[in-house]
Amino acid sequence: MRDIGVGVIGTGFMGKAHSFAYRAVAGIFPDSLRPVLQSVADINGEAAEQAAKQFGFRRWRTDWRALVDDQDIEVVSITAPNAVHREMALAAIAAGKHVHCEKPIAPNADAAKDMMEAAEAAGVVTQVGYNYIKNPILKLARSMVAAGELGEITGFRGIHAEDYMADPEAPYNWRLDASGGAGAIADIGSHIIGMARFLLGPISHVDADLETVVKSRPVRAGSSERRAVEVDDIARLAVRFERGCRGTIEANWVATGRKMQLGFELTGAKGSLVYTQERLNELLQYRTDGDPRHSGYTRIEAGPQHHPYGLFCVAPGHQLGFNDLKTIEVAEFLEAIAGGERRGPDFREAWEIQKIIDTAVRSSKSRTWQAIE
Amino acid sequence: MRDIGVGVIGTGFMGKAHSFAYRAVAGIFPDSLRPVLQSVADINGEAAEQAAKQFGFRRWRTDWRALVDDQDIEVVSITAPNAVHREMALAAIAAGKHVHCEKPIAPNADAAKDMMEAAEAAGVVTQVGYNYIKNPILKLARSMVAAGELGEITGFRGIHAEDYMADPEAPYNWRLDASGGAGAIADIGSHIIGMARFLLGPISHVDADLETVVKSRPVRAGSSERRAVEVDDIARLAVRFERGCRGTIEANWVATGRKMQLGFELTGAKGSLVYTQERLNELLQYRTDGDPRHSGYTRIEAGPQHHPYGLFCVAPGHQLGFNDLKTIEVAEFLEAIAGGERRGPDFREAWEIQKIIDTAVRSSKSRTWQAIE
Amino acid sequence: MRDIGVGVIGTGFMGKAHSFAYRAVAGIFPDSLRPVLQSVADINGEAAEQAAKQFGFRRWRTDWRALVDDQDIEVVSITAPNAVHREMALAAIAAGKHVHCEKPIAPNADAAKDMMEAAEAAGVVTQVGYNYIKNPILKLARSMVAAGELGEITGFRGIHAEDYMADPEAPYNWRLDASGGAGAIADIGSHIIGMARFLLGPISHVDADLETVVKSRPVRAGSSERRAVEVDDIARLAVRFERGCRGTIEANWVATGRKMQLGFELTGAKGSLVYTQERLNELLQYRTDGDPRHSGYTRIEAGPQHHPYGLFCVAPGHQLGFNDLKTIEVAEFLEAIAGGERRGPDFREAWEIQKIIDTAVRSSKSRTWQAIE
Amino acid sequence: MRDIGVGVIGTGFMGKAHSFAYRAVAGIFPDSLRPVLQSVADINGEAAEQAAKQFGFRRWRTDWRALVDDQDIEVVSITAPNAVHREMALAAIAAGKHVHCEKPIAPNADAAKDMMEAAEAAGVVTQVGYNYIKNPILKLARSMVAAGELGEITGFRGIHAEDYMADPEAPYNWRLDASGGAGAIADIGSHIIGMARFLLGPISHVDADLETVVKSRPVRAGSSERRAVEVDDIARLAVRFERGCRGTIEANWVATGRKMQLGFELTGAKGSLVYTQERLNELLQYRTDGDPRHSGYTRIEAGPQHHPYGLFCVAPGHQLGFNDLKTIEVAEFLEAIAGGERRGPDFREAWEIQKIIDTAVRSSKSRTWQAIE
Repeated sequence: MRDIGVGVIGTGFMGKAHSFAYRAVAGIFPDSLRPVLQSVADINGEAAEQAAKQFGFRRWRTDWRALVDDQDIEVVSITAPNAVHREMALAAIAAGKHVHCEKPIAPNADAAKDMMEAAEAAGVVTQVGYNYIKNPILKLARSMVAAGELGEITGFRGIHAEDYMADPEAPYNWRLDASGGAGAIADIGSHIIGMARFLLGPISHVDADLETVVKSRPVRAGSSERRAVEVDDIARLAVRFERGCRGTIEANWVATGRKMQLGFELTGAKGSLVYTQERLNELLQYRTDGDPRHSGYTRIEAGPQHHPYGLFCVAPGHQLGFNDLKTIEVAEFLEAIAGGERRGPDFREAWEIQKIIDTAVRSSKSRTWQAIE
Repeated sequence: MRDIGVGVIGTGFMGKAHSFAYRAVAGIFPDSLRPVLQSVADINGEAAEQAAKQFGFRRWRTDWRALVDDQDIEVVSITAPNAVHREMALAAIAAGKHVHCEKPIAPNADAAKDMMEAAEAAGVVTQVGYNYIKNPILKLARSMVAAGELGEITGFRGIHAEDYMADPEAPYNWRLDASGGAGAIADIGSHIIGMARFLLGPISHVDADLETVVKSRPVRAGSSERRAVEVDDIARLAVRFERGCRGTIEANWVATGRKMQLGFELTGAKGSLVYTQERLNELLQYRTDGDPRHSGYTRIEAGPQHHPYGLFCVAPGHQLGFNDLKTIEVAEFLEAIAGGERRGPDFREAWEIQKIIDTAVRSSKSRTWQAIE
Repeated sequence: MRDIGVGVIGTGFMGKAHSFAYRAVAGIFPDSLRPVLQSVADINGEAAEQAAKQFGFRRWRTDWRALVDDQDIEVVSITAPNAVHREMALAAIAAGKHVHCEKPIAPNADAAKDMMEAAEAAGVVTQVGYNYIKNPILKLARSMVAAGELGEITGFRGIHAEDYMADPEAPYNWRLDASGGAGAIADIGSHIIGMARFLLGPISHVDADLETVVKSRPVRAGSSERRAVEVDDIARLAVRFERGCRGTIEANWVATGRKMQLGFELTGAKGSLVYTQERLNELLQYRTDGDPRHSGYTRIEAGPQHHPYGLFCVAPGHQLGFNDLKTIEVAEFLEAIAGGERRGPDFREAWEIQKIIDTAVRSSKSRTWQAIE
Repeated sequence: MRDIGVGVIGTGFMGKAHSFAYRAVAGIFPDSLRPVLQSVADINGEAAEQAAKQFGFRRWRTDWRALVDDQDIEVVSITAPNAVHREMALAAIAAGKHVHCEKPIAPNADAAKDMMEAAEAAGVVTQVGYNYIKNPILKLARSMVAAGELGEITGFRGIHAEDYMADPEAPYNWRLDASGGAGAIADIGSHIIGMARFLLGPISHVDADLETVVKSRPVRAGSSERRAVEVDDIARLAVRFERGCRGTIEANWVATGRKMQLGFELTGAKGSLVYTQERLNELLQYRTDGDPRHSGYTRIEAGPQHHPYGLFCVAPGHQLGFNDLKTIEVAEFLEAIAGGERRGPDFREAWEIQKIIDTAVRSSKSRTWQAIE
C-alpha cells in the first residue's frame, strides 16, 4: 500500500491519541495505507515541537492553516477544542483534504450539516472520533442484531456515565460553554447515541429531561468566584427507533465512581446482549434456544474470531485497550480513503447524532416528545 | 411472646410463601409473636386441604369469609388474585383483623385509598408484600443515604426487569387484564417504585412511556385464537423526587434473559451504591474519600453486622434467600402488631405507590410530565 | 406422610440451623415425613428452655441421654461439639434411632469407622451435615459430569477459604484442639473434600502441605497469655482421583477477606464448570461445541428447572439461602428414613472424608504422597 | 533522547508484538530512547520482507547473524523459537548488543545461567519478555506488598491456565519437545512463577505434580499417526517462599474454556489482593481496617494514578491492552540501556525462574519436596 501524508491539529488528550494511532496503524493492519506523519500544529509552539519530536512528525506549526495548506498532506486530523472544529474542517475540505475530526464536530446540527454538505460536495472522506464502536466485540453485537439472531428487538437501555465533573469544585471549563448548547449529552451522550444508532439504526423521537446538578462552579481551580452552569450534567432520554422498538439513554458526567460506564442492555424476542466499556473485551449474550437447564448469559471474550482483533494479537484473551480502538478507527478511515468500504461514522452520521442532541435539548425545554427532523 | 392466630387466603405462589414465613418466623426471631396457623382458605377445596396439611393449619375453608370471621384469627393474610384484594381486605378490617396483603393491593389509587382509610379508621396494622426491601443489605443502603454518607443524592436509576412474559406465545392471563389499568408497571414496577421511595423518599413528578410490545396473545396456551393486550409490557419513567434529585425507573416483563433484575444505581456527591437482586447478598459502594490509588467500588457482603441477617445465621457469607426476606417481612409485621415500630410498607405506602403507577399511565397517554397528587 | 419424632442435641449455630430445618421441611417438601419437634437438649438448661420455646419443641433436657432414650423420638440430631459426637451417636444408634450428625463426625477415621459400622449393623439411617452439596445447582453440576457432558474430566481445583481465624488475636478455641488432629482441613476442608467426591468420586492419593500460620493465640479473648497452636491454618493438597484425573484442594481459615470461598473449577475435554458458594445460585459452564464466535462461560442461574428449587419458589431468580440448603439436607434424610433413596452423605461417606483428612496429615508430616486406604 | 538502532529476529506472534512495541514506544514515553527499526530477520525471506515493510524496518535478512553483526544495531530482540534463543543471545552479547529475548530464554537452568553469565560479563543490558508484570495495576499490587499494606503475607495461590492445547487432536508441535524438559510449566507456568517472584520474592522449595493429560497427539494436523507426549499439560506446585509464606501455583494449557487465566490470590494479615489477567485493568483489594459494616473487596480500576497508565491515556477507565504491556516492557528496557533503573526481568531473573521449573520437574519425578538451588 502507498504512503499517505497526515497532519494532526492539536496535541492534547486526543491529539496524542490520533498521533499514536496514525503512527501505529500500518504495523497492525498490513494492508493499510502507510501514514507519513508530516506535520503537527498547536498554537503553543512548545507543545507542537514536543509532539513532533515524540511522535516523529517531520514539521510542526503554530498556525493550523499552514498545516491545512501543506501539499504533502492528504489527511487532516482535527483534535483542537470543539469550538474551532468547523472552521478547521471547512478549510481542510476546501483544500481537498480528507478530514478526521474529533467529536462533537460542531456545537449544533446546523453547523454539522454545513460541514457534512461541504465534505460531500468536495467528495472527501470524513471520519469522526466515535472510537468505541470500533471494538470488535461490538461489531459482533451489531452483526447479531442484523442477522436476526436476537429476534425482533424489543428494548434498549443505553448509558454513558463518568464522574469527571462530579466534584462541585471542579472548575468551569470549555465543556460547560452554553454556546455549545449542551453538556454531558454532547460530550459523552454522543457516544451512546452513536452506539445506539450503530446497533439499531435511526432514532425517530426523543423525550428528554436535562438536569444541571452542579448549579455553579469556580471560575477557575481554587477560586471563590463562581459562575453559573447552563448546560446539563445529566441527560435522561426516552427514545423511539425507526425500526419500531423503544428505549432509554442516559448521559451523565457527575456519576460518582464511574470512570467509563458506557454500555447498554439490548433485548430481543430470541435473545439479549449486555455490554459495558468497563470490560471492553467482553459481551454477554443470552439465547432463548437450547436446554433450559443450561441457559444463561454467556460471557463472550474477544479473540481472533472477532476481526480485527487477530491483527493485534493472534491469541484470544489477550485484550485490546483504548488506544487500539483508535487504531482501528484510523485503519477504517484509511481503508475508505483507499477506496474501500466507508464504514464511518462520517460527518453525515455526526450530523444525525447532533440532531438528536439538539432535539433532546428542545424536548427538555418544552417538556414534550419531539421528532428528530 | 404470646401466640397469635393467623389465617391465610390463597394457596398459590404467594400463599405458600406467606404460610412458610408465618411458620418459620418465631424460630428465627426469638422475640416475635408466635403465629398459630389457624386456617387456610382456597375456593379449590383440595388445594386448601393440601395446604392445611402441608403447612400445619388447623382448619381449611373454601369460603374466605369464614376465615375472616374466625374468632381465633387476629391476622388475615391475603394472597388471592389482585382483583379480590379489596373486598377481602375491607371485610377483614371490618372484622377488626390485622391485614397482610400481597401487592398490588388494588387496581388503582382510589381503591387503595379506600382500603388505607378503612384500615386507619379501624386502627388495625397493615402490611403489603414488598418483601425485597426487607433485605438487610438494603437497610444498610437506606441508612447510608439517611446518614448522609453518600453526600447529596444526585441521581437514581432503577429497574425491575424479568422475562416471564417475553415469549409472544405466553398466553393471556389475569396480569394482562386492562381493568387493572397497568401491566408490568403494576406487577413488578411497583417493587422498584417502592424501593426508590424506601431509599430516597417521595416522588413528586413522573414522565412515562408505556409500551405494549406483544400486541396480542393466545387466549389460552396453545390456542390459535388471540386476544389484544392493552397493558404495558415495558414502562419507562423519568421521575423527580421531592428531595430534589431526579432519576429513571424501568419496569419490564419481556426482558429476555432476566429472571430477577431488580436493582438500582444511586449516586451522590460523596459516593454511590449499586445493587441488583440477582446478587441479593451484595451491595457495591463507592466512596470519594480515601487514597485515590486504592479507590473503587467495594463489594459489601451481607453478614451478622447487617441486622437481622445474624438471626438467620451467625456467620457472614452464608447468604439469605428469597423466603428469608418474606420471613423478615412477617417478623416486622408481627412486631408492629405487638406495639413495636411500624416499618411498613402499609396500606398508606401501597396507596402512595399506586398513585405513581396511575400517574404514569396518565402521563404516558398524555405524553407529558404529571405531578403525583 | 406420617409424623416422625425428632430430638436435637445442642442449641448453638448448628443446633438452631437443624431445629429450623426440621421445623420448615414439611412446609416445603409436601411429600416429606412430618417432623414433630419432641425434645431439645443442652447442658445449659436456660439455652435448652429458650430453644424449646423458640422452635416449638415439646420438651427440653439438660441430659442428652434422656433425649436419646425418649420413646417418642425416631431421629436424633447431634450438633454438640465435635468431641462428643461419637459417644452421642453410638448411644443413639444403640437406641435404634436414625442419626443426623454435624461434621466432622469424629476426630479421626478410626472413630468414624466405629460409628459407621455401628450404624450399618443397626440398620439405622445416618446423615452428616455437608449441606453445601445439597444445592440444586451443584446437583446439576454433578449430573453434567455423570452424563459425560463435560467429556473426560481433566482437572479439578477446589477450595474452602474463610477468614474467621485470620486475626492472630482470635483466641484459642476447641477448633484448635490438637487431639482432633487437624484444623482448617477438618473444619472446612472436609466440605470441599466432600464436594470433590460428590462431583468426581473417590480420591486415591494425596500429597499435603499443612501450615500453621498463627503460631500461638491468646488463651482467651484479650489475654496476654498465649498458647501454641498445633493444627493447620492452611492445608494445601495435591490429589489424585480414582477415575484418573488429578487436582488440588485448599482449606484455609486465615484467608483474609473471604467469608465463604467454597468453590471449584472443574475442567473436562468438552467443557468446564466454575462454582463459588459466594454466589450459590449460579454455576458457570463452558462448552466446546457451538459457534466459536459466541462461545464463553454461561452463567446458569438456579430456577425451578433445578429440582428441588421449585419447591421453595416457583419462579426463577429468586434464590435460595443457606438455611434452605439445610432444609434440603433434612428432606433427603427423611426421604431415606421413609424408604426412599439414600443420598447421604452418611456415616460411611463421613468416614471416607475423614480418611482423606488423616492421610493428608500423615502426608504433610512425611512430606510424601500417601495412598488413601 | 537519542535514537537507538534495533533489530528484531523472528516475525511470528512475538516478532510482531516486539516490532509493534519498538515502533510505538517513543510516542508513548516522551523521555524514551527513540528506536530506529534497522533490521528484521527471518529464515523465511518473504516473511522478513513483509515484516520490514509493515513495521518500517530499513532492511531485512534471512540470516540472523547478519543482523547481529549490524553496526547500526544496539539492541537485538530475539523472538525466534525457544530452541535457538541461546545461540542467538550469546552471539548478540558477543557482539556487544543489548538483548531482549522472549521467554523462556533457555530449555534449562544451566543454559540460562550461561546466557546470564555472558551478559553480565559483557555488561550489556538484558530483558526477558515477561510482559504481564509490566501492568501498572500489578506494580500497584507489588508496592502494596512492599509497603506492608497487607501486613505479613500469609498465602499465595497463583495460576496460569489457558486451553490452547486442550483439544486432544491439537497436533504435536515444538512446545511439546521433551528436550525442553517441560511443557505447560515452561510455556506459561514461567509467567506465574515470575509474577509470584515479582510480588513476593524468591521461592525456596517446591513440591510438584506434573501431569500429561493428552498422552499422544497427531504428528501433524489431521494425521492419524500419533506421537507420544512427554511433557506436562498441567503442573501443580506447592511452594515455599524465602520470606516465610507458602502457596500453590498451577500451570495448565488444557484448561478448557480459559483463554488467559493468569492470576493470583494473595493474602496477608491486614488485607488481600485478587487479580486475573482476564480483567487486566482491575485489582481487587480487601482491607481489614475500617467500618465492618462497609468492608469488602474493592475493585480498583487502572487510571493515571497508576504510572505509566497516564502516558497511554490521561483519563481513567479507558484501559490498557496486551500490546500496551509489551510497550511498557520495551520502555523499561530502553530506560535501563539509557542508564536508568534496571527493572528487569533480565537474564538473571530468567535463570531464577528456570531453576524453579527444573526443580519442579525433578520434584515431580521424585515425588518429593526439593530445594531451589
